[in-house]
Amino acid sequence: MKVQRILPTDEAADLLGLVREIATGELAPRVAEFEASHEFPREVVRTLGRAGLLSLPYPEEYGGGGQPYEVYLQALEEIAYHWFAVAEAVNVHNLACFGTAAYGTEAQRGELLPGMLSGELLGAYCLSEQESGSDAASLTTRAVREDDGYRVTGTKAWVTHAGHADFYNVFSRTGGPGARGLSCLVVPGGTPGMVVHEPERKLGVWSNPTAQVRFEDVRVPADRLIGREGKGFLIAMGALDCGRLGIAACAVGIAQAAADYAVRYAKERRQFGQRIISFQGVGFMLADMATQIAAARALTLAAARLKDAGLPYSLEAAKAKLFATDMAMKVTTDAVQVLGGAGYVSDHPVERWMREAKLLQIVEGTNQIQRMVISQGLD
Amino acid sequence: MKVQRILPTDEAADLLGLVREIATGELAPRVAEFEASHEFPREVVRTLGRAGLLSLPYPEEYGGGGQPYEVYLQALEEIAYHWFAVAEAVNVHNLACFGTAAYGTEAQRGELLPGMLSGELLGAYCLSEQESGSDAASLTTRAVREDDGYRVTGTKAWVTHAGHADFYNVFSRTGGPGARGLSCLVVPGGTPGMVVHEPERKLGVWSNPTAQVRFEDVRVPADRLIGREGKGFLIAMGALDCGRLGIAACAVGIAQAAADYAVRYAKERRQFGQRIISFQGVGFMLADMATQIAAARALTLAAARLKDAGLPYSLEAAKAKLFATDMAMKVTTDAVQVLGGAGYVSDHPVERWMREAKLLQIVEGTNQIQRMVISQGLD
Amino acid sequence: MKVQRILPTDEAADLLGLVREIATGELAPRVAEFEASHEFPREVVRTLGRAGLLSLPYPEEYGGGGQPYEVYLQALEEIAYHWFAVAEAVNVHNLACFGTAAYGTEAQRGELLPGMLSGELLGAYCLSEQESGSDAASLTTRAVREDDGYRVTGTKAWVTHAGHADFYNVFSRTGGPGARGLSCLVVPGGTPGMVVHEPERKLGVWSNPTAQVRFEDVRVPADRLIGREGKGFLIAMGALDCGRLGIAACAVGIAQAAADYAVRYAKERRQFGQRIISFQGVGFMLADMATQIAAARALTLAAARLKDAGLPYSLEAAKAKLFATDMAMKVTTDAVQVLGGAGYVSDHPVERWMREAKLLQIVEGTNQIQRMVISQGLD
Amino acid sequence: MKVQRILPTDEAADLLGLVREIATGELAPRVAEFEASHEFPREVVRTLGRAGLLSLPYPEEYGGGGQPYEVYLQALEEIAYHWFAVAEAVNVHNLACFGTAAYGTEAQRGELLPGMLSGELLGAYCLSEQESGSDAASLTTRAVREDDGYRVTGTKAWVTHAGHADFYNVFSRTGGPGARGLSCLVVPGGTPGMVVHEPERKLGVWSNPTAQVRFEDVRVPADRLIGREGKGFLIAMGALDCGRLGIAACAVGIAQAAADYAVRYAKERRQFGQRIISFQGVGFMLADMATQIAAARALTLAAARLKDAGLPYSLEAAKAKLFATDMAMKVTTDAVQVLGGAGYVSDHPVERWMREAKLLQIVEGTNQIQRMVISQGLD
Repeated sequence: MKVQRILPTDEAADLLGLVREIATGELAPRVAEFEASHEFPREVVRTLGRAGLLSLPYPEEYGGGGQPYEVYLQALEEIAYHWFAVAEAVNVHNLACFGTAAYGTEAQRGELLPGMLSGELLGAYCLSEQESGSDAASLTTRAVREDDGYRVTGTKAWVTHAGHADFYNVFSRTGGPGARGLSCLVVPGGTPGMVVHEPERKLGVWSNPTAQVRFEDVRVPADRLIGREGKGFLIAMGALDCGRLGIAACAVGIAQAAADYAVRYAKERRQFGQRIISFQGVGFMLADMATQIAAARALTLAAARLKDAGLPYSLEAAKAKLFATDMAMKVTTDAVQVLGGAGYVSDHPVERWMREAKLLQIVEGTNQIQRMVISQGLD
Repeated sequence: MKVQRILPTDEAADLLGLVREIATGELAPRVAEFEASHEFPREVVRTLGRAGLLSLPYPEEYGGGGQPYEVYLQALEEIAYHWFAVAEAVNVHNLACFGTAAYGTEAQRGELLPGMLSGELLGAYCLSEQESGSDAASLTTRAVREDDGYRVTGTKAWVTHAGHADFYNVFSRTGGPGARGLSCLVVPGGTPGMVVHEPERKLGVWSNPTAQVRFEDVRVPADRLIGREGKGFLIAMGALDCGRLGIAACAVGIAQAAADYAVRYAKERRQFGQRIISFQGVGFMLADMATQIAAARALTLAAARLKDAGLPYSLEAAKAKLFATDMAMKVTTDAVQVLGGAGYVSDHPVERWMREAKLLQIVEGTNQIQRMVISQGLD
Repeated sequence: MKVQRILPTDEAADLLGLVREIATGELAPRVAEFEASHEFPREVVRTLGRAGLLSLPYPEEYGGGGQPYEVYLQALEEIAYHWFAVAEAVNVHNLACFGTAAYGTEAQRGELLPGMLSGELLGAYCLSEQESGSDAASLTTRAVREDDGYRVTGTKAWVTHAGHADFYNVFSRTGGPGARGLSCLVVPGGTPGMVVHEPERKLGVWSNPTAQVRFEDVRVPADRLIGREGKGFLIAMGALDCGRLGIAACAVGIAQAAADYAVRYAKERRQFGQRIISFQGVGFMLADMATQIAAARALTLAAARLKDAGLPYSLEAAKAKLFATDMAMKVTTDAVQVLGGAGYVSDHPVERWMREAKLLQIVEGTNQIQRMVISQGLD
Repeated sequence: MKVQRILPTDEAADLLGLVREIATGELAPRVAEFEASHEFPREVVRTLGRAGLLSLPYPEEYGGGGQPYEVYLQALEEIAYHWFAVAEAVNVHNLACFGTAAYGTEAQRGELLPGMLSGELLGAYCLSEQESGSDAASLTTRAVREDDGYRVTGTKAWVTHAGHADFYNVFSRTGGPGARGLSCLVVPGGTPGMVVHEPERKLGVWSNPTAQVRFEDVRVPADRLIGREGKGFLIAMGALDCGRLGIAACAVGIAQAAADYAVRYAKERRQFGQRIISFQGVGFMLADMATQIAAARALTLAAARLKDAGLPYSLEAAKAKLFATDMAMKVTTDAVQVLGGAGYVSDHPVERWMREAKLLQIVEGTNQIQRMVISQGLD
């Protein structure tokens, strides 16, 4: 990846250097093996955590990296470039820390955040259910108040890190129907009554399993309620805004990886007596790929700078997620095309990137949901 | 598939009925299992053969179905709708029969065609090599004349039915460099010296394995030379014209399967209190999918009618292949999107269709090669 | 235009020959001048009429051409290829004849159709109003029953042939709100109380002016009510189905004209020492244009064959209109691009085709309405 | 235009405020009239000049605005939002100043730049010829050295400000064939022998006429040679890099204008009892438009920041030009679509923006040339 980045500080430049070092040294050599074995690289994630890369955008006082989102996202992009499943782990972990950091009481922050941000613990984010994906406000998992806590019942779907996470952000219904009836609880992994289902048989991202998690009368202490009752939807949406930026950055990373690979291939592969990159039919495809990637990166970072400046960025995050992930689907599909038959087999990682890109159009709000968000913002 | 077809004869309508019966009764119930086990359904293909569906467009006098291409392609589309890997077998088999039927001597036709068209034997088509894909004229497999036959040496790539085929159309160099040095030999399966490599680890179409076939001093009788020495390239290109129509029809079938599935899902799945098909954001996607499929089908059949009328159709076949396969990639990708998370897992066949569609943009000449063919035709 | 057509009869082939003769002899030499002067070529249209080309798809017994839609649309395409404004006149005239032919009483057919189909009279179609375009069922022009006829009051918008037409199909409200309250009246041009506004200042199609027509207490005899009261919406929609096929054929004609022009230019224009068509960057654009046009033509004719066979074709007409007009917009925009600066000036007709293509995405139901129709058909 | 901008300085924010004030007060009220009369608004441009807006990115010491490109481009975008023809004047003027500023001797800068940057004089840029557009290096206008100057002979095409400019950057051949034989001369307007042809009859941008300029033995003093002989191609390409950023910014401005207009219309226009923006079929189009615009703006400013940081930015400028202008064509075409029939007439400015957008895909190197530049940069 030969991207010319303008970073805000020297510290950020050093940080990116570190990320690249870890990504090429620790991630790149292992991705194929873990993908093939469908195994979650818990130790690799822990390495990132110890290097401070699991909690970059969170306050230093609680153990975070204190980095602006603009920098965090570029780090995330570099990780996704080498191993998307690990970048997804970072993104989901950050999602799972969001509620406590942004809406937790001072006591909760003091108690929970250091662990969350230390790099040792890994978080999960439980919002979707089988019957409520796009329409999160209709979810049916219930948290009933009793004695000194809550009793949680229901089944969460598409839970990344299911079975591997140390803590779970569980959105459940404490009140009436609709968005206002939702609350956010932080549930420690392994709490009795939590049952992790068989992993989903996904098209890609095999080294980061996803599964349903059933909550059967799971008891959660009252002080694990983040913010107040009824704040759940607000927290979920706030987390998704951040998460969408993360997904956009991942999409850029994956697309860049595929484009770089296709360029290298097109420089070496010869047909009709020439390197195929010298045919405009191939060269122009690669030019369009490079252009689309650059646009997605710029849009993502522009949205991040709004967030960093404390300005509203929710619509811009939706645009970045929409644009970057549609772009990644297109670019990776075309990258396979550049390789031709070689692109269709797993001897080359390009078909993997295509399978991974498809996920990005769906998660953190499908791209149809992004368009809904954006069009409502115009109205 | 509720497609309103206008067929040229009642016989054709009956034939399509038979195809649908076999497809729903014999193919649909088995596809998931064979795909999962990466096993080639030789018996299923034999069933098709016995029903006369392996050789529809070939002359009845030699055992073919005597059907116009317009009808054959609609049959193929219906097969692909239910199981693309089997449709690919049909298409490749027809490719493999082409040379003998179109360029064989009267003696070769009389001797070889009945077996080829009987439905018992299965053919393979060996044109590509590792270093010559798009640029077929540069292939390096050699067939050296000696005594009463040829000695063939070289390695063919991307051979569908490798190890399963009963006869192989092998394009090899009998003369000097370039297109005019190529000839076409029909080599019986199992001829000593043929070595089938490990199957390629493909993104999709797992129940129809593809592999390299190495020819180590393989002896082929002289009367297995189709046409004359030097006619190989012409035969290969003629076969590809037919094969492109076949691939276009398969693309239509796969896309229709994905679209129908997405429509059914969108009629049942409810979010925000409504069936999601009632949201224009989804409904318009489905409308675009239906429109693109209809256009691809119409274009493919229009090209077929040119062929059936004995008119030049090579450019139109290239257009149909280009359009239909790009369409199928887009439609299947969008079909996954309509299902959201459900589309990303193998509980539903939509992700499989997307993986299969990608192959179609590459085989029988990449879509870049089609554009080259078409643009040269404009010039 | 070197399109290889397969026509159903020799008569149809002769007819197409005649059309081409008139188009190149009478239309092509005049289009630039009439476009520049914003003048309607009433005499040219009369020439077409006398040659029988204004009423091709209507029954011979009433003076029509008795041609299947498949043939009529190819004639229309050839006319549009040379002069879209005239093709639009033909399409609108056919729209205006539809109600009487399909829903008129035997007496009305006998009385009105011979004049309508003779080629001397020209029809107009008045459905849209300023406040009801896509939502035709909400139109507010009223026809009040009195004595021996109707008194019509209201203002119709976007009326092609306004001021030039000999008869006007006016859709007005004779009953309550909604689609069932509408009726269709045939109003002779020049009936007292009809006021033609200033022509709209359109982006293109300057030689076929469009204007509002105000009806101020216009008296229409009772026997000019087509079908029955309340049938208006049905008639309007039936006419639009035909009209959409017509627009699709026009889109194909315009796009083919632009593509042919661009190909000729690209074969002559030299840059970097080569004809620019030999650069894949240009050649592939032209190949894509040719492919898209072929697909649109095939789709349009496939829909026409359904109509000709008496099968439901409304959804297929919507698909053809949607696909062909989006295609024409893209192809003409790209054709300008092939010419570069030369494409941007009116020395070449390409920019005119682009301006005309834009109209086609809007008329006879915007392409958004087509998607609505198609998606509802899936449901 | 409600774009949330993060500007580098308070001064820049003030500057943008001033631009907006002038744009809404001086430009917006006049654009329709000047476009209709095909008249160049020389006085309006002078007003901009006096406000310092003609030379924002040039050094303050010579009378320029001393603004980073990041700021200049946002000012240019705001101008284009209200009147593209004027923004084009600004862009071309900046192009015309580039050579002197970047390659002039100290003496030339001291003598020429203050006038050029004062806001009183207007520049033109003469590179293209009838037979050399994309392939600038093959231009044939000759400048023959004689006595104390050059004698220039040839005809330049597509000259913006032809007849209105006070100075012309004329690229002509002083040496042998190819790029190394070209030189750049600054020729005062009105020099004897310069003949301005009739303005081109363009599709749009009517208030900024373009014409050929013929040079018939035009005498130019030797000290008007910028840089050295043979440096012409380098200067031309350097100017184009800047100019491409300018065109990208203009594309963003035009697209934003069209999108804002379409959003306003869609909020007011009612069909089927609802504001049409509330239909996802329209709302999602608007969302896609907003997303594409945001991406183009971000990409353009990212490229500008590279330039401002003194880093290579040529490839990124090409990407920005390619992406932003293709985007503007799509967005303006869709904006017309949102208005339907109303979009097709000049009562609304949307069709004008569409006509203007088409120019942007062509100028400062067609988008095919941009792809060539980008793909060669990958290689």
